[in-house]
Amino acid sequence: MKLASFSHGGRASYGIVKDGGIVDLGKLIGAQYPDLKALLTAGPALLNQLRAQTSTIPIDEVTFLPVIPNPDKIFCAGLNYRSHVEETGRTASEKPVIFLRLAASQVGHGQPMICPAISDQFDYEGELAIVIGKPGRHISRDNALDHIAGYSCYNDGSLRDWQRHTSQWTPGKNFAATGAFGPWLVTADEIPDPTVLSLATRLNGQTVQSATVDLLIFSIPELIEYVSVWSELIPGDVIVTGTPGGVGFKRNPPLLMKAGDTVEVEISNIGTLSNPIELERN
Amino acid sequence: MKLASFSHGGRASYGIVKDGGIVDLGKLIGAQYPDLKALLTAGPALLNQLRAQTSTIPIDEVTFLPVIPNPDKIFCAGLNYRSHVEETGRTASEKPVIFLRLAASQVGHGQPMICPAISDQFDYEGELAIVIGKPGRHISRDNALDHIAGYSCYNDGSLRDWQRHTSQWTPGKNFAATGAFGPWLVTADEIPDPTVLSLATRLNGQTVQSATVDLLIFSIPELIEYVSVWSELIPGDVIVTGTPGGVGFKRNPPLLMKAGDTVEVEISNIGTLSNPIELERN
Repeated sequence: MKLASFSHGGRASYGIVKDGGIVDLGKLIGAQYPDLKALLTAGPALLNQLRAQTSTIPIDEVTFLPVIPNPDKIFCAGLNYRSHVEETGRTASEKPVIFLRLAASQVGHGQPMICPAISDQFDYEGELAIVIGKPGRHISRDNALDHIAGYSCYNDGSLRDWQRHTSQWTPGKNFAATGAFGPWLVTADEIPDPTVLSLATRLNGQTVQSATVDLLIFSIPELIEYVSVWSELIPGDVIVTGTPGGVGFKRNPPLLMKAGDTVEVEISNIGTLSNPIELERN
Repeated sequence: MKLASFSHGGRASYGIVKDGGIVDLGKLIGAQYPDLKALLTAGPALLNQLRAQTSTIPIDEVTFLPVIPNPDKIFCAGLNYRSHVEETGRTASEKPVIFLRLAASQVGHGQPMICPAISDQFDYEGELAIVIGKPGRHISRDNALDHIAGYSCYNDGSLRDWQRHTSQWTPGKNFAATGAFGPWLVTADEIPDPTVLSLATRLNGQTVQSATVDLLIFSIPELIEYVSVWSELIPGDVIVTGTPGGVGFKRNPPLLMKAGDTVEVEISNIGTLSNPIELERN
């Protein structure tokens, strides 16, 4: 099942994507479950009851929002594919590299990713994102997959100059409207083994990143185990699992994103997240 | 005026601290303004109207919550006092070092700060926190103080081993219940010039950190200017401004926090944030 957050006629909602349309769950059950995070909190039984509903909104009438517009936490893994570690000239660490994104830095599928006026180093990072469905702390890697509600595509858009102002990457990873998340999540029952997924990033149609998820240095269960040592995971929390080699600022010459470009992140069994690049308007 | 978030009889609320008691604003206007963040969003005019209310709950009957239990964003400045930069053996950076805390890592005044079972390197960091009152992006340093609702104390409790797992400090700065925030905020009208404030941290009564806020490398206006380049600040957002020299893990011998300890952060014109240390229960 594909679950998306969207706006329609100026109203924020969420629903099931099927048959070229969307079942508007916000309209059906929004009074009790105001957003997709609330639906995930309610658990899979409710979702299964809603599976038989028929779609009512043509998909091209909606504006996609970030899959989870309001996650409590967005954990991002850095340097988690060997091909990316090598191109940055670093060595792999013994523990996962984790930084945080703010919900305010996100945009949905089809929405512009905004290149700030102050930087010309806006780079793509295609990644697989997982969305937590079942809460937990101190989750062992053996049970970790049980905590996943679903999988989605993420473009961890990065301002490379601001990322390297200091040792901490926070500013370059948190400009407004630089993290694209969508178009929807595919529920975990349809992806029993995420390591078989393959990921490609395209800039203006040219493939610039390509990898399979089995190449992650720290696997999805290991990331969940590590993060849940220090933070309680709750439904709607997002873990963005890292980007493979091929990022723009390590190419020769560099290949950075500029206004008018289109960037796509496609993951097998999930779909394609596509975003135009626009320059910040002041 | 002092504003606090608290729970009383199992109910979360917020109010004005005065005359040894608390004006329960949650009871008075909670239907429209459910929490202190919502009150700050409404702006100072409403607050001024409420100033004349009399307190109804004795202060020793409440359990303090983090001043803002649910901030949209918590920005923390690192290495922002020369005395701390020097003890860490680093050099000051040309830009502010910013990392993020999660709301879930916070506790209120009087509540235990939890030392996780997995680490014995739980360190204190006494800091001045500012709370945003007026929203803005691209705020110039000249106008920055206008965006501050008030000031509070913060203890940016840090697990030093987990902070140094990789280049990114996130894990060591985000264990559950390690960031103490309180006891209240003092509104900015009472602190027209925050550089005159002085800060002291005490562990079991012994002063371990002591500084004046004029010693910040990046001033409060500069921090607001820098962060608002990339992130829109909204009411309730928190900026924790950095800790001075004297942290425990750089002492010889190291002085780390353990169960049974009491740690205090006192800031002039604000008050004292006090927390016992407890070991995580599994």
